[in-house]
Amino acid sequence: MSITVVGSVAFDSIETPAGKRDRCLGGAATYFSLAASYFTDVRVIAVVGEDFGRRQQAVFDARNIDTRGIEHTAGKSFFWEGSYLENLNEAKTHNTELNVFAAFEPKIPDAYRDSEYLFLANIDPVLQRRVRDAMPDVKLVAGDTMNYWIKGHKAALLEVLKGLDILLINDTETRMLAGNNNLVQAARAVLQLGPTALVVKHGEYGATAFFSSQSFAPEKEKTEFPFRAPALPLEEVVDPTGAGDSFAGGFFGYLASQPALTPRIFRHAMFYGSVMGSFACERFGTERLQELSRKEIDERFVLFRELTHLD
Amino acid sequence: MSITVVGSVAFDSIETPAGKRDRCLGGAATYFSLAASYFTDVRVIAVVGEDFGRRQQAVFDARNIDTRGIEHTAGKSFFWEGSYLENLNEAKTHNTELNVFAAFEPKIPDAYRDSEYLFLANIDPVLQRRVRDAMPDVKLVAGDTMNYWIKGHKAALLEVLKGLDILLINDTETRMLAGNNNLVQAARAVLQLGPTALVVKHGEYGATAFFSSQSFAPEKEKTEFPFRAPALPLEEVVDPTGAGDSFAGGFFGYLASQPALTPRIFRHAMFYGSVMGSFACERFGTERLQELSRKEIDERFVLFRELTHLD
Repeated sequence: MSITVVGSVAFDSIETPAGKRDRCLGGAATYFSLAASYFTDVRVIAVVGEDFGRRQQAVFDARNIDTRGIEHTAGKSFFWEGSYLENLNEAKTHNTELNVFAAFEPKIPDAYRDSEYLFLANIDPVLQRRVRDAMPDVKLVAGDTMNYWIKGHKAALLEVLKGLDILLINDTETRMLAGNNNLVQAARAVLQLGPTALVVKHGEYGATAFFSSQSFAPEKEKTEFPFRAPALPLEEVVDPTGAGDSFAGGFFGYLASQPALTPRIFRHAMFYGSVMGSFACERFGTERLQELSRKEIDERFVLFRELTHLD
Repeated sequence: MSITVVGSVAFDSIETPAGKRDRCLGGAATYFSLAASYFTDVRVIAVVGEDFGRRQQAVFDARNIDTRGIEHTAGKSFFWEGSYLENLNEAKTHNTELNVFAAFEPKIPDAYRDSEYLFLANIDPVLQRRVRDAMPDVKLVAGDTMNYWIKGHKAALLEVLKGLDILLINDTETRMLAGNNNLVQAARAVLQLGPTALVVKHGEYGATAFFSSQSFAPEKEKTEFPFRAPALPLEEVVDPTGAGDSFAGGFFGYLASQPALTPRIFRHAMFYGSVMGSFACERFGTERLQELSRKEIDERFVLFRELTHLD
């Protein structure tokens, strides 16, 4: 079943201990789409400027990602510049230029309207809400956000959370959103805000899913207890940009590819999220995500199982 | 089979968001012994002062821990005062008084000499080495250390590492010891220094074991790939003091209780370490570790499995 994702398609200039890249293809919707495309059909809603050309389009085309919802306008695409020289776990932002993104008005192609899965990547919650409301019939909605929206646009964000099934954010964002430093208590508070599942991403330590007491899954298996997926200890993290969005893409892409949403499938989706996040870090930008095979993905899934399973 | 542990038996004054305790029983050897005592026989080598009385002795006696190697001398016991008010993951030390520990000369009772397992808790590496050399016939030696010894007493520490089978330290210590910020590369460098297994403790994110290419286990199963045990997301961390030592006690205690050291048993030991670490955090000081049952421990082991296993 297909996923519609709304979010940024951007250019990133990145510096890490492994080197530098100028203006490589980036953006949350890009990473998400590429990661999810190994599992299911993906349709993107975004806006780009005149600097988005054939080379960038080819990246989406090669993965059969539907880009009819990417609007092309006059001006330059969203641009981010950052580095990870001191700490690979946290980007230092040097420059952000919204450019065409400043006036982004998501337009949903008619061809996208039968999507059963919707992912609201990290953008202005007002826009997330608008897209969500315009697609009332989707079966499952997941989303992301960031400290900027939690701090400065909380009212709008709270409206989005009411319409979300699954929220994927990191430790700091979870604590900030709940105003509570204990992760378990913070997770419980966030689950009161709307989502029935909260996936907290821990970077190099993996991710933990928390569930509200109303069972998330159609089958009434025990889901109140959290589930933790590991991250692969990586020999070399070339570039962590987009790892969280790739986690979301692998996670949601796998969910959308399955016939039913059971707790067991949710757990497998967490592992596939970690798998895609680990691949994203191995090269600069989207390089690694562009040229994977499903075989490589499933082999790494097996590694993740060996990494964590007792028997 | 029995474990001999050498380390500190101390008094701690602790403040956390959950409250305060003045001069409760603490010390690495205390936490280690209590945790390991649920799995196997434990014998302690330490030194205490006149402030160590019947109440403290009773804590060891209730768990059948052999304390003939605890030397009683004139003066006061080792004392530590710290708080975790801003960050539950890192203690802020307010005061450390070595007291009788300053002149500690470990003496090994003859009755301890048939111990097959030896744990060198975090003390001066010169003393760790002395105890290790005095027990040449042990079957397996594990140990801990801290940033203080890595920074200021590296030569002595490197001598200890040569005689260790398993080193248990945290992320920061691993990176510091190797002089490398990438955990996988740092782990590989540490494994070059002597140990055949390195267990890196991640606090609330669990622990990862790395193995040297020479198989650690008697059976030649695949052990080069790391193994990650989770920590339990805790609703309330009352006091994290001693969680790492309790992990070590659960881990090594379980190993010592098993007939053979296989990779599978190593993985189970990692889980039991996490189990004991999680219990330690639930109350102040050693309170929780004093009154557990093996049933509670095994039930939590099952929870850890559910927390991480796909099927």
